[in-house]
Amino acid sequence: MSEEQLRSLLEQVQSGAVEIDEALGRMRHLPFEDLGFAKIDHHRALRHGMPEVVFAKGKTPEQVALIAERLLMNSRNILVTRADASTAELVTKLTPQAEYFPLSGAIRVWEDRTIRGKGKIAVVCAGTSDIPVAEEAQVTAEVMGNEVDVVHDIGVAGIHRLMSNRERLCSARVVVVCAGMEGALPSAVGGLVACPVIAVPTSVGYGASFHGLAALLGMLNSCASNVTVVNIDNGFGAGYVASLINRG
Amino acid sequence: MSEEQLRSLLEQVQSGAVEIDEALGRMRHLPFEDLGFAKIDHHRALRHGMPEVVFAKGKTPEQVALIAERLLMNSRNILVTRADASTAELVTKLTPQAEYFPLSGAIRVWEDRTIRGKGKIAVVCAGTSDIPVAEEAQVTAEVMGNEVDVVHDIGVAGIHRLMSNRERLCSARVVVVCAGMEGALPSAVGGLVACPVIAVPTSVGYGASFHGLAALLGMLNSCASNVTVVNIDNGFGAGYVASLINRG
Amino acid sequence: MSEEQLRSLLEQVQSGAVEIDEALGRMRHLPFEDLGFAKIDHHRALRHGMPEVVFAKGKTPEQVALIAERLLMNSRNILVTRADASTAELVTKLTPQAEYFPLSGAIRVWEDRTIRGKGKIAVVCAGTSDIPVAEEAQVTAEVMGNEVDVVHDIGVAGIHRLMSNRERLCSARVVVVCAGMEGALPSAVGGLVACPVIAVPTSVGYGASFHGLAALLGMLNSCASNVTVVNIDNGFGAGYVASLINRG
Amino acid sequence: MSEEQLRSLLEQVQSGAVEIDEALGRMRHLPFEDLGFAKIDHHRALRHGMPEVVFAKGKTPEQVALIAERLLMNSRNILVTRADASTAELVTKLTPQAEYFPLSGAIRVWEDRTIRGKGKIAVVCAGTSDIPVAEEAQVTAEVMGNEVDVVHDIGVAGIHRLMSNRERLCSARVVVVCAGMEGALPSAVGGLVACPVIAVPTSVGYGASFHGLAALLGMLNSCASNVTVVNIDNGFGAGYVASLINRG
Amino acid sequence: MSEEQLRSLLEQVQSGAVEIDEALGRMRHLPFEDLGFAKIDHHRALRHGMPEVVFAKGKTPEQVALIAERLLMNSRNILVTRADASTAELVTKLTPQAEYFPLSGAIRVWEDRTIRGKGKIAVVCAGTSDIPVAEEAQVTAEVMGNEVDVVHDIGVAGIHRLMSNRERLCSARVVVVCAGMEGALPSAVGGLVACPVIAVPTSVGYGASFHGLAALLGMLNSCASNVTVVNIDNGFGAGYVASLINRG
Amino acid sequence: MSEEQLRSLLEQVQSGAVEIDEALGRMRHLPFEDLGFAKIDHHRALRHGMPEVVFAKGKTPEQVALIAERLLMNSRNILVTRADASTAELVTKLTPQAEYFPLSGAIRVWEDRTIRGKGKIAVVCAGTSDIPVAEEAQVTAEVMGNEVDVVHDIGVAGIHRLMSNRERLCSARVVVVCAGMEGALPSAVGGLVACPVIAVPTSVGYGASFHGLAALLGMLNSCASNVTVVNIDNGFGAGYVASLINRG
Amino acid sequence: MSEEQLRSLLEQVQSGAVEIDEALGRMRHLPFEDLGFAKIDHHRALRHGMPEVVFAKGKTPEQVALIAERLLMNSRNILVTRADASTAELVTKLTPQAEYFPLSGAIRVWEDRTIRGKGKIAVVCAGTSDIPVAEEAQVTAEVMGNEVDVVHDIGVAGIHRLMSNRERLCSARVVVVCAGMEGALPSAVGGLVACPVIAVPTSVGYGASFHGLAALLGMLNSCASNVTVVNIDNGFGAGYVASLINRG
Amino acid sequence: MSEEQLRSLLEQVQSGAVEIDEALGRMRHLPFEDLGFAKIDHHRALRHGMPEVVFAKGKTPEQVALIAERLLMNSRNILVTRADASTAELVTKLTPQAEYFPLSGAIRVWEDRTIRGKGKIAVVCAGTSDIPVAEEAQVTAEVMGNEVDVVHDIGVAGIHRLMSNRERLCSARVVVVCAGMEGALPSAVGGLVACPVIAVPTSVGYGASFHGLAALLGMLNSCASNVTVVNIDNGFGAGYVASLINRG
Repeated sequence: MSEEQLRSLLEQVQSGAVEIDEALGRMRHLPFEDLGFAKIDHHRALRHGMPEVVFAKGKTPEQVALIAERLLMNSRNILVTRADASTAELVTKLTPQAEYFPLSGAIRVWEDRTIRGKGKIAVVCAGTSDIPVAEEAQVTAEVMGNEVDVVHDIGVAGIHRLMSNRERLCSARVVVVCAGMEGALPSAVGGLVACPVIAVPTSVGYGASFHGLAALLGMLNSCASNVTVVNIDNGFGAGYVASLINRG
Repeated sequence: MSEEQLRSLLEQVQSGAVEIDEALGRMRHLPFEDLGFAKIDHHRALRHGMPEVVFAKGKTPEQVALIAERLLMNSRNILVTRADASTAELVTKLTPQAEYFPLSGAIRVWEDRTIRGKGKIAVVCAGTSDIPVAEEAQVTAEVMGNEVDVVHDIGVAGIHRLMSNRERLCSARVVVVCAGMEGALPSAVGGLVACPVIAVPTSVGYGASFHGLAALLGMLNSCASNVTVVNIDNGFGAGYVASLINRG
Repeated sequence: MSEEQLRSLLEQVQSGAVEIDEALGRMRHLPFEDLGFAKIDHHRALRHGMPEVVFAKGKTPEQVALIAERLLMNSRNILVTRADASTAELVTKLTPQAEYFPLSGAIRVWEDRTIRGKGKIAVVCAGTSDIPVAEEAQVTAEVMGNEVDVVHDIGVAGIHRLMSNRERLCSARVVVVCAGMEGALPSAVGGLVACPVIAVPTSVGYGASFHGLAALLGMLNSCASNVTVVNIDNGFGAGYVASLINRG
Repeated sequence: MSEEQLRSLLEQVQSGAVEIDEALGRMRHLPFEDLGFAKIDHHRALRHGMPEVVFAKGKTPEQVALIAERLLMNSRNILVTRADASTAELVTKLTPQAEYFPLSGAIRVWEDRTIRGKGKIAVVCAGTSDIPVAEEAQVTAEVMGNEVDVVHDIGVAGIHRLMSNRERLCSARVVVVCAGMEGALPSAVGGLVACPVIAVPTSVGYGASFHGLAALLGMLNSCASNVTVVNIDNGFGAGYVASLINRG
Repeated sequence: MSEEQLRSLLEQVQSGAVEIDEALGRMRHLPFEDLGFAKIDHHRALRHGMPEVVFAKGKTPEQVALIAERLLMNSRNILVTRADASTAELVTKLTPQAEYFPLSGAIRVWEDRTIRGKGKIAVVCAGTSDIPVAEEAQVTAEVMGNEVDVVHDIGVAGIHRLMSNRERLCSARVVVVCAGMEGALPSAVGGLVACPVIAVPTSVGYGASFHGLAALLGMLNSCASNVTVVNIDNGFGAGYVASLINRG
Repeated sequence: MSEEQLRSLLEQVQSGAVEIDEALGRMRHLPFEDLGFAKIDHHRALRHGMPEVVFAKGKTPEQVALIAERLLMNSRNILVTRADASTAELVTKLTPQAEYFPLSGAIRVWEDRTIRGKGKIAVVCAGTSDIPVAEEAQVTAEVMGNEVDVVHDIGVAGIHRLMSNRERLCSARVVVVCAGMEGALPSAVGGLVACPVIAVPTSVGYGASFHGLAALLGMLNSCASNVTVVNIDNGFGAGYVASLINRG
Repeated sequence: MSEEQLRSLLEQVQSGAVEIDEALGRMRHLPFEDLGFAKIDHHRALRHGMPEVVFAKGKTPEQVALIAERLLMNSRNILVTRADASTAELVTKLTPQAEYFPLSGAIRVWEDRTIRGKGKIAVVCAGTSDIPVAEEAQVTAEVMGNEVDVVHDIGVAGIHRLMSNRERLCSARVVVVCAGMEGALPSAVGGLVACPVIAVPTSVGYGASFHGLAALLGMLNSCASNVTVVNIDNGFGAGYVASLINRG
Repeated sequence: MSEEQLRSLLEQVQSGAVEIDEALGRMRHLPFEDLGFAKIDHHRALRHGMPEVVFAKGKTPEQVALIAERLLMNSRNILVTRADASTAELVTKLTPQAEYFPLSGAIRVWEDRTIRGKGKIAVVCAGTSDIPVAEEAQVTAEVMGNEVDVVHDIGVAGIHRLMSNRERLCSARVVVVCAGMEGALPSAVGGLVACPVIAVPTSVGYGASFHGLAALLGMLNSCASNVTVVNIDNGFGAGYVASLINRG
């Protein structure tokens, strides 16, 4: 039942052409989400007040470009994640504002650079191999309207590097920590800072890392109470939740 | 090296009794956390600005009671988690303010009921068997200074129950969702609300639930972008992070 | 918004006290499932046209008895699954019609014995240790209004036993097959019959059966195309779906 | 022993040329399935009253084409699953009726379009990446003689999309639900409809989806009682069982 | 159809009372295993020419005793495995010949001590904790009519112990090797002897032995070509197959 | 210490040139396997009385060819397993007797065709995709001096095919059964025959077959007592052990 | 063949009573480890120059006491691990020197307190629940002749506690680190010290710690290069290897 | 705060320009690792007194070459691990001293060949396929200043090969054992030698070896007390720790 249909029904009630019991009967099975004018009809992304996001993996370059083109009609900021080079080539042709980040596969159009977050988001990675995941988190958090402070290569096997970045970490409102292998960094960071830490296990490692499983389990068992976890390599999710927290 | 020792060294520098190079030499190995007056010396819990928490599992009732007694000298609020009945008996004798929650095993002393959170925290559970975990989250969030709205038994197999609680969920600043079995509820909630969702897999289920593994994996793979995950049955961790977010 | 509130709103529209645009605005956030008079408000079980079912595990005997008591006010048939002896004691006191099945832990009140299924449901088990799970399937299918034919102990290591029961199996409209250990029976049955086979892995076995995992994986990989699978030991689910199919 | 041999033996008994004990002795080891005229000799597919199906994976294009060619002599409908492009090229040359579905790799010859199912089968997928699996289910169910209603992209993180398709789902006699990642959709659908739901976990996802394991476990632990599960990505099996149920 | 029924049918054919086509029609669906006089009707155990075996786990003491009693009417040798003390008490009352082996839970009646094996079976265990499993293999192999040579405690971390038993091992026709923890002994034994080695992983160990999984995987990956494997703790199966090989 | 050295030492003892204590001292650390004349010095393959076998995987074509060349100097029969086409090209140039089996990757030189086994070995596979593994078992058993009877495509979902091959299976002294997917065939075969069954799980399947794990677990949990198991896809090992049993 | 037998044989060679060929023949199968006088005959423990150790788990109290009694005849130091209270009661009666450590279940007789290690061994644990495992390591290292420095409760979520113990850790020659949950401490310690670190995962934790698996995987993937790992809860093994390193 | 800043502050204290309380205040948050002159600032590798090591995997050839170039300015010895051919081409151009080991992917510059180890390190591998991992261990141990004795192909299925190398193994101060498949060799070696054994599981194998998991679990459960374990294929880690032990 569309808004028009509902309006017409109400008009019939108003005019007496339809009895109230009859109207109630018709509305009984009214599908909630077919009201048309309800907020619930808007895209999930819009409901969250976030830019549109396209997950490119499993879509053809043409499909992604088409979606991106349509989104760009209404949005000044869009984010495409996990895009390969050929997808990037098509999408970056759509607008000169589109930047491609080859490490993470992100494509970003970031025209509206209003800062919506109340503080800074720190994005930390344990080793240089974790940078692609950290980049996805950073790019996401920025396009969502946050100031992001990126700290690279401060793994737990060199604690002094962590300690020397302590003040930067402590001045953030949320910290995203990306780490593969043993995934120990979120616990160490979690013990230093007083804000929420979002841990992103990465698939960096070999052998008994089992493609990120070791890091994932480590983070889920963190002895620091302020740590929550997202899926392996899910830099986007971490950047997204960090944005929600920072805006809150 | 305590503050006193450092002060004394500086006084000797001031008076000329110790040369600068000599002073530098002594300070070179100065253990950072022995400065005494540094914030870092305070308990982790205090650094987070949170009440003290004792994890009772693996400690004897006597040990827990001793720790609780000592904490109660300085703190008006304390939380003991995973306590059995005999531990509860000892701890609740320490002060008439202590409440015991047998489902979750939490013991709480909650004298300072100042609200520090900026909004409400919703704690949701999918089925009645998930209530103990939800209770741990609720008790934690409350003692951390939050208003908590608890919604029971709104699993995805009865979506209308979820939909009818939509406004309550949407009015929260953070939602904690506890679910066992297939662990699908956080995705459904995450799609409805615009705030961060903290998913707690519970060990409720049998057979291929593998003691919460099915729910855990489901939540980590959530198609809703605003979901992060904590360990199986970790209601405390979820309540803790929700508190940090709500205060932020 | 209850039915009363909606009726009142429509009356105000009818009387002109509320404008149509105003009414539309109020209805915009109307929670679908709060219409009250909608079918969706009814219990899931009722929507499926099935008797009420209570999963007793994780509930106290008193809780189960209370729920059963309330259900018995409206229903002539109810089913409690996974009840222990003390729960059974309480529930069987409620009505002389209640039977307790100690092997499977089912309690059944089966006053309305109308047959609703169009044919027979065969419930098969591979070994005597699988009987508790088969019993749960049988009890469920019967109380849902089906004629059930139970065939015990026809594991694949004695194919002649399977073959000698071929006609019984072939005359069923659905076959439920319960098997532990290697879980091979559903494939063998699936190859003999032309109807849907619902496979129930059981936790019977030891060592590398890993509490039913071996049987579960075997059944999911069945080379017979007419096999679907439910959770380990989930006799109830198998009996339930078999009933739906048999009624269809 | 063929029918001819058996007839000949009986004739010898009739004529007195062979004693009864002698005849009994010869028949003692009579292989049941060598009677020739017994139904059991027919292909499994025929016993199920279904078109012939060829699983192309692991066979060379030439092998598949040869089998297809032979089957086409007797059958107006055949289905090849998991065929790559080079296999498709060979098979589609055999008859102009052959259609190739590149997403799922199905090849279908569908000359006899008689509807044998009593109602509709709904095939639902959670996200666009699940479409190949859904397509395999759809193509299978159609060639088996069913009207199929396909509903795309109604994942649980946008419940309104699910709700707005509620009537379509409720009007089906069986629903096939394909979902990767957390695999939550079958539970939500199962709660809405009163018919059997066949859940197909897909290998869509990354990280802790473990190639469909997360979705598989989620579906096996579904809190909806009307859900059964097939192997990861097994759209064919789901379409096949759905057909059996719909014909029943 | 029993032998009597078939004889009667043949007599009717002989006498002309039944036409051949009619007889063929009746025999068409003749269940193979209902011939009655066919070998296939005999118990699996008998078909293997082995004593009857009862797996006691999951049966009540009374059930086991009843089965044992019935078997003892026809058999001079029987074997019960995995029996607890109360089952043993009942069964050993049946006949003074019954011996109970508490370590492994075997009960044996071994009246017919004919040696049927052509040579010796060696049963080896790596450590003293593996003895219960080895005992089950030994008891089984003996009651099946074999001479058994038991060698204890020759784990790979003391290779000289293995080497000093080399001649005993080499003089066996089959070697059963029971080992927990890393499960390395079958490979070492397999390299020394020229006969088949049956490896039995045991659940002995802790931590990353995962209840026998480590030993099981080790044995399946043995670099010795003459090793096959049975289920964790399955001493019975190993003794059984060893008997078949030794008789062959 | 070679036989010559030991002889020389004994001669010196005999002649009095070396004292007994001195001789004992020299022999004290005598490496057992350096006696030279001991059987233990012979290659493992020779100790088992088997032809030489080369596992080609992980070796370069040149390495395999070199080893094969050297072996061919002393042996009339050799077997290379898991060789790719380029390795086969090199090895088959060495002698016109070399046959290459591309499905399994085996290369065989089989000049000495003496039959050493006492009976037949049956090699069975469940589906056509299991043929490569069955071929490896067959080629191995043949070159080890056995008559092999190969039976293809008798999976459990078509039990009549299995039943119609019952006599062939029953006339073997050992049966090797190769099966992927649910791995149920060894149990069914094990129930029919009275000889040892060697089960080979194959990696055939997809999704929850987990590359052969489902079949492996199924076989380890076989309810037939005469089944032992080798590694996934290990046709060679099965053929090897079958040969040992058949010669025994 | 014992030393005496060999000597006698050599004397017969010397005297001419036995021919050299005859002597060679007898010696051919000479079991290496029966020479008697070879070092290889000594117990493994003695070969390592370590006190005798008894693993009590899986042995009866009487068995352990008997072994301990026999060992005490020759040894001034012995170690029993994983003993329960009743075993301890029996063993401590044997000698007043026996100490029982109830947390870890170790029983130690430590009369010879000679220090054999060249430096100190540090034994570190992350949390108080890891103390039983650390105690086993400490008791082992001490009875093996080492000075042990125990540092408790310095988990990575409170890095300052780790840092303030840095000098103690740096002054050790080997560090044993016991940690459960995420198992991150060995990496952090490994980055601080220059000596070998032996990591002991403990089964401390719940949910996704999977009884120590998370800690084990974390430690195996340590980004610190100086870390090796032992089995879950294997404090004994860690203490043992640390002793070997410290003596080296 | 650098050393200069600290010196300047102390000078101000000395001169009276800064009050002691003011100085204390400034020093309060002094980041420990910014003292500049502290040892902790040095690279981890240097702290361990080891040559610099670069893990090439996941870095571009250019990145590795750049790092190597910079390191070569200060170091006479460097090690690059897991380098592919194109990386090797770039790095070996930097200096004629660079050797490339294609099996393991190691690149080594080894100008300073001082022996720092006190004894020999033995590096053992079970089969020829394990050689790449053994090579990585060897190359590492050599460049760290150790004499290395490499023993190939002494798997447990040919124990005499192991026994004949016993003296070489016993003369080492540490033994590194690389083995795939069942991973049994470290236990056998551990039983022969009295020094620490570092076990390296390799990913060699197929089927149920699960890419090294079987070997890893085997080694963690070793019944030899002197065995510790590193990650699958981690030859570098084993060589590194062996070097630390050998220098100790």
